Amino acid sequence: MDDKSANTARLIALDWGTSSLRAWLLADNGEAIDTRTARRGIMQVADDAFAAAYREIIGDWIAVHGDLPVLACGMIGSRGGWAEAAYVDCPAELCALAGRLLKVEADPVPLYIVPGVMQQAGEGALPDVMRGEETQVLGALAVAPELAERGLLVLPGTHCKWVHIADHRLAAFSTYMTGELFAVLRKHSILGKPIGRNESAIDTEAFDFGVDSARAAGTAGLAAALFSTRSRMLAGELAAEATPDYLSGLLIGDELRSALAGLERVPPLRLIGDDALCGRYRRALARFDIDDAAEIPDAARSGLWRIAEAAGLLLTRHQNS
Amino acid sequence: MDDKSANTARLIALDWGTSSLRAWLLADNGEAIDTRTARRGIMQVADDAFAAAYREIIGDWIAVHGDLPVLACGMIGSRGGWAEAAYVDCPAELCALAGRLLKVEADPVPLYIVPGVMQQAGEGALPDVMRGEETQVLGALAVAPELAERGLLVLPGTHCKWVHIADHRLAAFSTYMTGELFAVLRKHSILGKPIGRNESAIDTEAFDFGVDSARAAGTAGLAAALFSTRSRMLAGELAAEATPDYLSGLLIGDELRSALAGLERVPPLRLIGDDALCGRYRRALARFDIDDAAEIPDAARSGLWRIAEAAGLLLTRHQNS
Repeated sequence: MDDKSANTARLIALDWGTSSLRAWLLADNGEAIDTRTARRGIMQVADDAFAAAYREIIGDWIAVHGDLPVLACGMIGSRGGWAEAAYVDCPAELCALAGRLLKVEADPVPLYIVPGVMQQAGEGALPDVMRGEETQVLGALAVAPELAERGLLVLPGTHCKWVHIADHRLAAFSTYMTGELFAVLRKHSILGKPIGRNESAIDTEAFDFGVDSARAAGTAGLAAALFSTRSRMLAGELAAEATPDYLSGLLIGDELRSALAGLERVPPLRLIGDDALCGRYRRALARFDIDDAAEIPDAARSGLWRIAEAAGLLLTRHQNS
Repeated sequence: MDDKSANTARLIALDWGTSSLRAWLLADNGEAIDTRTARRGIMQVADDAFAAAYREIIGDWIAVHGDLPVLACGMIGSRGGWAEAAYVDCPAELCALAGRLLKVEADPVPLYIVPGVMQQAGEGALPDVMRGEETQVLGALAVAPELAERGLLVLPGTHCKWVHIADHRLAAFSTYMTGELFAVLRKHSILGKPIGRNESAIDTEAFDFGVDSARAAGTAGLAAALFSTRSRMLAGELAAEATPDYLSGLLIGDELRSALAGLERVPPLRLIGDDALCGRYRRALARFDIDDAAEIPDAARSGLWRIAEAAGLLLTRHQNS
């Protein structure tokens, strides 16, 4: 064992998801010495060549800093990833995550993978699963400990998660396929037909119109509201180039309607994710009278650090077995 | 003018939609002498070569039977079709359709196109549009006149329409993108990933499970229920090959939940459309305690005949102008 001084590398942390891989070389207290992003999400790694992608992303860090523990969260631990890590049952003690790491023998050093969380079906509740978000939740609670007794974390993305925290546990969660629905409808459905390139600034008027339309549709829900993206355009209420932001507002608005409907009182709510997307959610939340939804940055990195600490990965130089 | 005897050709009727073109050569009383189907929907006609597709489908009928009136309904009259026919406002007198035909000069004879119907936005109602279904509704009421005072016609398909009839008028309608959602989610989303080819018989158990799950999800709606297609599989509740029929049940079930929720009493309900798809709807309706939803066949053909009659197209041999 070395006597670690500040800025000595202690951990390599990987957020290895479906469409991207982020890697951090972390020093004491979890500070980042170096950061990398690669298009090496599990969908982008040809022929499941995870071992090669792994060497590629961490090889030179190990060469320079010696053997370090490596901890990953996300879809790399799914059935379609490198190796399937277990699920921890929900309600989940967050400390249970550290006790259930999966060790994958690899070159130049083993990889540890954080388990996912599974919610079983029960009295009206649908079964649900997460991989990666549990780590972000743990990281977020380090930054916002006031949510540990009772809080709501919203993680916008391809599959947006709404995670309820109660008594320091991950109590319940729901997945909304909002991001993926937007992508497939825009690219492959008639709702995307009139849409040119419009990747620039958000058309806030169209977005708000979509949010309000979803809210007004109420319990009739998304199935009844989606086609209004087209019919409002044909009725002259919406310009063709405004339809993507209307559709975005409609989908996010319906998600908020659905997720907030069952709550007598909305717990303190925080957002975790991409800035631009969190901005859309903050804007939509304000139309549901929720004005204090701050963003929590660096949640995955913080969570991986906490789990590595709790699992004892930081105590010893790792022996490559 | 000829003295028409039975089996003399009187009308060419076209149901010209997005993905297919059906054509009938009709004799007195609207009986079909000949029938054709072509992959010449408006999405399949390259470079908007509608005139050529038109000649191709009707040319030899005209050559054999002389100039006949030709009447079309469907997306051929949309902005993306051959020529844009107007919309009749909803609530719509169905006889108003015949008075608003669009005449397109064409070779060898002109084409008349039935207008669509537009519902304007108002007190909680979303704007909506239809093209083609108004003609099927008119045809269905000829077969089932008992629905003319009060009835509900459901037209499953890419964009399923729920059409309320009251006092012999098309009173209100809603579009559900159920068919298109199923297609894009199956083909392009993660929900389609584990699915092999499974075009054969319906897995009724998985389908019913989907319908019941949508019903149980209640007003939380589709956004919250969709991901269960994946999570139920990961939780071992659903075999991978059963997921398409589960997803089908989920989408149709949510549509029924949404469409039936607002009704104090469900009016007499009939289905119009493809047999297999109507079978799915009948099965799902039974799980919502609606057991008498019969199918009405040949609705488009009947409707075109009625409109041609009302518009006076059958009175004279057409003069090609």
